[in-house]
Amino acid sequence: MANPVVDKRDVKFVLYEQLDIEQLSNTAKYAEYSKEMYDMVLEQAWKLAENEMEPANSKGDRDGCVWEDGKVRVPESYHRPYQMYREGGWLPISEDVEAGGQGFPVVMGLSAIEAFGAANLALFLYPGLTHGAARLLEVYGTEEQQRNFMDKLYSGEWCGTMCLTEPQAGSDVGASLTKAVPNEDGTFSISGTKIFISCGEHDLTENIVHMVLGRIEGAPPGTKGLSLFIIPKLRPENGQLVDNDVNCGGIEHKMGIHGSSTCTLNFGENNNCTGYLLGKENQGMRIMFQMMNESRLFIGMQGQSHASAAYLYALRYAKERTQGPDISRIKDPTAPKVAIINHPDVRRMLMFMKSVTEGLRALLYYVGFCEDMVRSSTSDEEKEKYQDFIDILIPVCKAYGSDMGFRVCETAIQVLGGYGYCQEHPVEQFLRDCKIASIYEGTNGIQALDLVGRKLVIKRGQLFKRLIGETEDFLKWARKNFELRELVATFEAAREQMIQVTKYFGLKGMTADYVVPLLYATPYLELFGDVAIGFMLLWQALIAHRRLQEIYVDAGAKDGESQKEVLATNRSAAFYRGKVASAEFFITNVLSLSRGKAKAIMSGQRAAVDIPEESFALS
Amino acid sequence: MANPVVDKRDVKFVLYEQLDIEQLSNTAKYAEYSKEMYDMVLEQAWKLAENEMEPANSKGDRDGCVWEDGKVRVPESYHRPYQMYREGGWLPISEDVEAGGQGFPVVMGLSAIEAFGAANLALFLYPGLTHGAARLLEVYGTEEQQRNFMDKLYSGEWCGTMCLTEPQAGSDVGASLTKAVPNEDGTFSISGTKIFISCGEHDLTENIVHMVLGRIEGAPPGTKGLSLFIIPKLRPENGQLVDNDVNCGGIEHKMGIHGSSTCTLNFGENNNCTGYLLGKENQGMRIMFQMMNESRLFIGMQGQSHASAAYLYALRYAKERTQGPDISRIKDPTAPKVAIINHPDVRRMLMFMKSVTEGLRALLYYVGFCEDMVRSSTSDEEKEKYQDFIDILIPVCKAYGSDMGFRVCETAIQVLGGYGYCQEHPVEQFLRDCKIASIYEGTNGIQALDLVGRKLVIKRGQLFKRLIGETEDFLKWARKNFELRELVATFEAAREQMIQVTKYFGLKGMTADYVVPLLYATPYLELFGDVAIGFMLLWQALIAHRRLQEIYVDAGAKDGESQKEVLATNRSAAFYRGKVASAEFFITNVLSLSRGKAKAIMSGQRAAVDIPEESFALS
Repeated sequence: MANPVVDKRDVKFVLYEQLDIEQLSNTAKYAEYSKEMYDMVLEQAWKLAENEMEPANSKGDRDGCVWEDGKVRVPESYHRPYQMYREGGWLPISEDVEAGGQGFPVVMGLSAIEAFGAANLALFLYPGLTHGAARLLEVYGTEEQQRNFMDKLYSGEWCGTMCLTEPQAGSDVGASLTKAVPNEDGTFSISGTKIFISCGEHDLTENIVHMVLGRIEGAPPGTKGLSLFIIPKLRPENGQLVDNDVNCGGIEHKMGIHGSSTCTLNFGENNNCTGYLLGKENQGMRIMFQMMNESRLFIGMQGQSHASAAYLYALRYAKERTQGPDISRIKDPTAPKVAIINHPDVRRMLMFMKSVTEGLRALLYYVGFCEDMVRSSTSDEEKEKYQDFIDILIPVCKAYGSDMGFRVCETAIQVLGGYGYCQEHPVEQFLRDCKIASIYEGTNGIQALDLVGRKLVIKRGQLFKRLIGETEDFLKWARKNFELRELVATFEAAREQMIQVTKYFGLKGMTADYVVPLLYATPYLELFGDVAIGFMLLWQALIAHRRLQEIYVDAGAKDGESQKEVLATNRSAAFYRGKVASAEFFITNVLSLSRGKAKAIMSGQRAAVDIPEESFALS
Repeated sequence: MANPVVDKRDVKFVLYEQLDIEQLSNTAKYAEYSKEMYDMVLEQAWKLAENEMEPANSKGDRDGCVWEDGKVRVPESYHRPYQMYREGGWLPISEDVEAGGQGFPVVMGLSAIEAFGAANLALFLYPGLTHGAARLLEVYGTEEQQRNFMDKLYSGEWCGTMCLTEPQAGSDVGASLTKAVPNEDGTFSISGTKIFISCGEHDLTENIVHMVLGRIEGAPPGTKGLSLFIIPKLRPENGQLVDNDVNCGGIEHKMGIHGSSTCTLNFGENNNCTGYLLGKENQGMRIMFQMMNESRLFIGMQGQSHASAAYLYALRYAKERTQGPDISRIKDPTAPKVAIINHPDVRRMLMFMKSVTEGLRALLYYVGFCEDMVRSSTSDEEKEKYQDFIDILIPVCKAYGSDMGFRVCETAIQVLGGYGYCQEHPVEQFLRDCKIASIYEGTNGIQALDLVGRKLVIKRGQLFKRLIGETEDFLKWARKNFELRELVATFEAAREQMIQVTKYFGLKGMTADYVVPLLYATPYLELFGDVAIGFMLLWQALIAHRRLQEIYVDAGAKDGESQKEVLATNRSAAFYRGKVASAEFFITNVLSLSRGKAKAIMSGQRAAVDIPEESFALS
């Protein structure tokens, strides 16, 4: 039996009951699509993920990538699922039909991505990065560039990469030394070295198209002088593909994602590397920035994918593994053993994993849904509103998603105990694979700075105000639920703390104390993430609570005992009860800390920056 | 240059300035020992750790253990440092001279353990476990058993293990199926299988002595029917060592500690395995329990060791790696790059690591010091007091130490960014090696149950009351410091929250709601750990603050500017300033959450246990 990848019922709950994506069919853009088609996509994605991608995951981790004579071989087990993925037309699932895509809503594409990432993240990185490269070409490429490169990328015949990092230029992208010298024919001769390039060289496809940041001779220093170049491994010349002097100098030996090659790429070692300018000169960072939302949402989803797979695996294990008696018979050595899911501490761990996984899923899908609203709405005002939601939520999705995904993987190991630490179970791999998500596509520290230093500030704080307005509308509705009033109140209080801290940052930012928001950017993002997840879970709980009451009424179950009977026999009822429980657990255990977190931030305590460097350690 | 293992100045600060271990020389037991001798021990331990053990760490991780034909080879690089460790007489450093030891205080042994674990945990596990086995023999063995086994263990000529776990008996030790049949000569014929046995088979030493839990035929079920047996790999017979039918059926492939063999051991497959009863029949668990404090403190120290090594490595990296301009020139592309330690978010991470590492170190050493007080005091009352401190703090040391050690390792990876994810730097190994500490020697969930279900309850709550009394005495002194009054107040408030939750558990424990303390045992342990670390850091800050003031007075530095000059030139002043900063950081950022943590626990919210199993996930 393959390992489970996603909670299918919950995926459908988010899509149909929470976000109600069927409403998209009312727009011209998505008029042709229906729930039946969505269901079919989901079934196909899950089948591919479970039957083809997941079985290659653990073996791919053990085999890893092999670098030999400048070439990289991916794990043998990857080739078949990659071909099936490609033939299924999954890569451009949410792309416009005119660009060769299937035209499905972005949120549908995301739900497929969740399953693929949960099944085999290292494998899925190859097409995942390819999509980003293709999308750059779709938006900024000339017709010739699209014909030469984009079509082959969207079809998965070739793969693509993003090349930003250099040895001296990590978070500081502007320090790039990659050089571009104009040729007479409008192309550029490229020279430079890029490191940490995911999927930079491999044998899954014949050709690889690199999107490379570099500086045209004479361009200004820093990010403002960077341009973006299309640099294929093999370049088209007179209808042939010829070697383009892109050489892989080695691959990294990493903690995880062993099946994904992480390459050092040398461009133009033999002065024969041609690059094609994408967009305009010195616009490289601006172009990259516009694609960043997509790639950062993708990385947040990586955290979610690992959380999903880790939670479901630990859950199954906890139902099967027996150990110790029920707590009511703890002192009786003759008591039968029970499955460990019956032990309170194990349940606590599972509830943590469940609530975080469900909350993150909702948040990420919500952002995907916002993108669909941007794409399909006919109102500029509405478009801007949803774009604002996306822009402010993206750093939270990326950083909070990867950090919390890691926590869930860590908890899964703990549920499995000693077995969780061993490679015969997949959870230790999930943890190792997941860690990279907090680092690449901008470290989580960079995300926090993006949130505090940019997203809170641009448009005079409009993004934040809009989001708060949206939750205010939500609260008007939520306050009507009498039975969940305590949850609503705890959420309200946490939201208020977040507002206070945001105002505090606003004040500090205008004074000489501007270092304080920078120092507390990461704790702020965490608080923001808590509230965002609390919002999603409360929203879900309100829906689920109503459905549950309807089921009780239909069954004539008025008291606790008869309701318990319903829960025991009605799977929908059990599911909705679980949704309410997720909100109860998360809001009580996590949002109760919001006040303290806000207090810590607003202490403005500067010990970390005020002490001399020598105070850190003398040895 | 070897990687740094511990902050030497801070180790000495804890030993001499905080715990003032020189006072031990006033006792008869430690009258012969002096600061000069302690310093010598520290220097020797650090030299061995840095020059011999650490250089074998990364290679040992890559090579791992090899199992072939039932035999295990440890990494080749381990043999030399092991021999040097053994020849240095480190194993029985804190053992009585009469038992072949060096008679040093336990806290001195601990400080050496920290360095060895930080240098090479997987290697250090071999003698670490040997020590536990030897100690069991010292306390419970007959003269013959001591002669046959203990001496060879303390000298490191042979290694020792602890064998508890079986496939069906993990946390549920009492489910053991290992069988012992009495022989006529008083020995037992053993049959059974143990799994996850650390250092169960290897080629570091000629012989291995296993301490094995099993059930004598006809003994009662559960833990009450378990006895402890000495089962050597080679048994002494007529002056010879003969094969004792202990076979290694395989080793685990683990996430970390690759150099430490984790074995399946089959006893008596050929009906030729002899075991020697240690202590009395059916007293196996009781004996093991008495040794548990030592082994759990050792595992807590593992978390600390990794935290120490990870912090110091990340600190060095942050001082050397340049990236981006100073924040004051963030928008100037021509501004020079600065070391990343100048970036506020990096400083925040370093301060987190620093404060946790220093607080944990103090807590663990404090428990070691308590053990010295138990061993050296002539007052039964005082002995009991310190034993109570040890008993209640041990589960916190083990679980909080390993959990926070893991957090520090995780943060170190984040400081290094992409480099932290790659094997050329040691921090990803620290994370992998560290994870096991939350699992073995009783999972951290088991530790929390030990704290809540046992340590809070025994002696009518005397252990907790005593600890609170001790902190009350401390507070009387602490409240006199006017300048640190806010820190003192925040600590007091957190301590009060811990008291309230403890009382709440007491009430719940007496009602049908007894499941609530079990459900919240882990969050309670976390709160307890926060307060314990806060206590240690505040204690240190009060000492450091006084010293710093003395230095300022001596230098005639009365205002902020002149004090800054002192900090820049006087290393002691910088160190003391750093100590105060650790308390400021931890107390503000972590103890501010105590109220929320307490509130969450005292909500008594039971979502995790109340929902039906089906509510967790349907797929």
